Amino acid sequence: MGVVTDRRRVVRVREGARAARPDTLAVEEPLMVRLVDPGPAPGSSALTLTMRTPGDDFDLVAGWLVSEGAVAAPADVVAMRLCPDEDNTVEVALARGVEPPRPRAFATTSACGVCGSDTVVEVRAGLRWPVATDPMTVGADVIAALPDLLRERQRAFDRTGGLHAAGLFTADGEPLYVREDVGRHNAVDKVVGAALRDGALPAAGTVLQVSGRASFELVQKAARAGIPVLSAISAPSTLAVDLADECGLTLLGFVRGDSMNVYSRADRLR
Amino acid sequence: MGVVTDRRRVVRVREGARAARPDTLAVEEPLMVRLVDPGPAPGSSALTLTMRTPGDDFDLVAGWLVSEGAVAAPADVVAMRLCPDEDNTVEVALARGVEPPRPRAFATTSACGVCGSDTVVEVRAGLRWPVATDPMTVGADVIAALPDLLRERQRAFDRTGGLHAAGLFTADGEPLYVREDVGRHNAVDKVVGAALRDGALPAAGTVLQVSGRASFELVQKAARAGIPVLSAISAPSTLAVDLADECGLTLLGFVRGDSMNVYSRADRLR
Repeated sequence: MGVVTDRRRVVRVREGARAARPDTLAVEEPLMVRLVDPGPAPGSSALTLTMRTPGDDFDLVAGWLVSEGAVAAPADVVAMRLCPDEDNTVEVALARGVEPPRPRAFATTSACGVCGSDTVVEVRAGLRWPVATDPMTVGADVIAALPDLLRERQRAFDRTGGLHAAGLFTADGEPLYVREDVGRHNAVDKVVGAALRDGALPAAGTVLQVSGRASFELVQKAARAGIPVLSAISAPSTLAVDLADECGLTLLGFVRGDSMNVYSRADRLR
Repeated sequence: MGVVTDRRRVVRVREGARAARPDTLAVEEPLMVRLVDPGPAPGSSALTLTMRTPGDDFDLVAGWLVSEGAVAAPADVVAMRLCPDEDNTVEVALARGVEPPRPRAFATTSACGVCGSDTVVEVRAGLRWPVATDPMTVGADVIAALPDLLRERQRAFDRTGGLHAAGLFTADGEPLYVREDVGRHNAVDKVVGAALRDGALPAAGTVLQVSGRASFELVQKAARAGIPVLSAISAPSTLAVDLADECGLTLLGFVRGDSMNVYSRADRLR
């Protein structure tokens, strides 16, 4: 476990009065991910640098590799270790034949130009497990309960107000993995990575509940982990809906009390 | 102006009843930024790919270049144009001697390991304009009014619930630039880019108001634009506070009604 919260001095202004006191904040620290070079010579090269809340770092790295489409099975990751000499660095070794993710700008094949619908079709075409054929259904009452279940399991949010959460649940609303992070993408990567490391991917028959909005990237992360239902407390974007539609993933938004919006594959909601 | 909102079909569930209807959503589309190769031969190479809400794309690209520390004056950007053959692509040409940003993972100099305090010191050391010596002060009543002023100028939020906003204001609370985006980082980049293109950087004596939380990256963007005060509606992270402290930037959080928290340089608040 890393240090999830820490204290800083704050001046609170309330109705014109000032008071200095310590305040509890969500910790944000850089994480460098280095790829151990294949071959006999020792060495590693920088793979990505992200800002994250410490803790569950191996889950974060594993889930990020799934989200980027690079790995899909526990054996794809040969080893992970904390760099012994320095903080905030994870070294990862991939199995022979597993292509590491490339920087996003260079991963595109178009000579010039990108468009939303091409992007959506490309993601769907690259899925290892189609979520469209997942036969699961889920009760609207189960979905309605997930935001509170997620919130109850957020250890640090109440103290800081500064952490996103993601939780993977069964169709009966049983929690499988819940993770927190200052970044909402990281929280999802941590959940997906925990599932990968447990050999639980594809996460068929599950619901991913997130504490914020639903972007294209979050739908992509869910689809690449084989999760058939993504439920968000706030709004989705157009491209999130288009990707969910293309992948046959059920996307819910504005899940508040017993009301919710279903943007795709409403047939899974009982 | 790009298309900021669009409609999708949604099934609304309210107290057990379902109704299908169109819903207005925030548009998210990819944007490819390509760097025109220097030299006489025509050509360009991929610089970055981001998901953003269309509109103000030149502001977004210009602000992103400022945030990455690559450009600081209008003349650093020789030309920007929409790629004529394809949607969602901006080509940018930089002045001779201006180094384009490198992918984040490869921009670090450490052989192994990163730590928050090194990162913070590195950002401060690389600032073109120190914000620490900006003599501006701002009334607590002005800060308290900014979230509502920002919200009033958000054209699309009320229709979608899915857009972040950033606004640059004078010390008297006069709005200079307000921009929206599905990504909160993009909203800030659009504001900074608009200021750069107007020749208004460094943005001395201004306040940047954002609709969400304050992360390390948002403080970095403000500091690199020479903005001395960053005000957020929600929580900051530890590293946001540490960077604000190191740079001498005033960081406010939880600005709600007439209450607010000041995490650094409270001497600027009247």
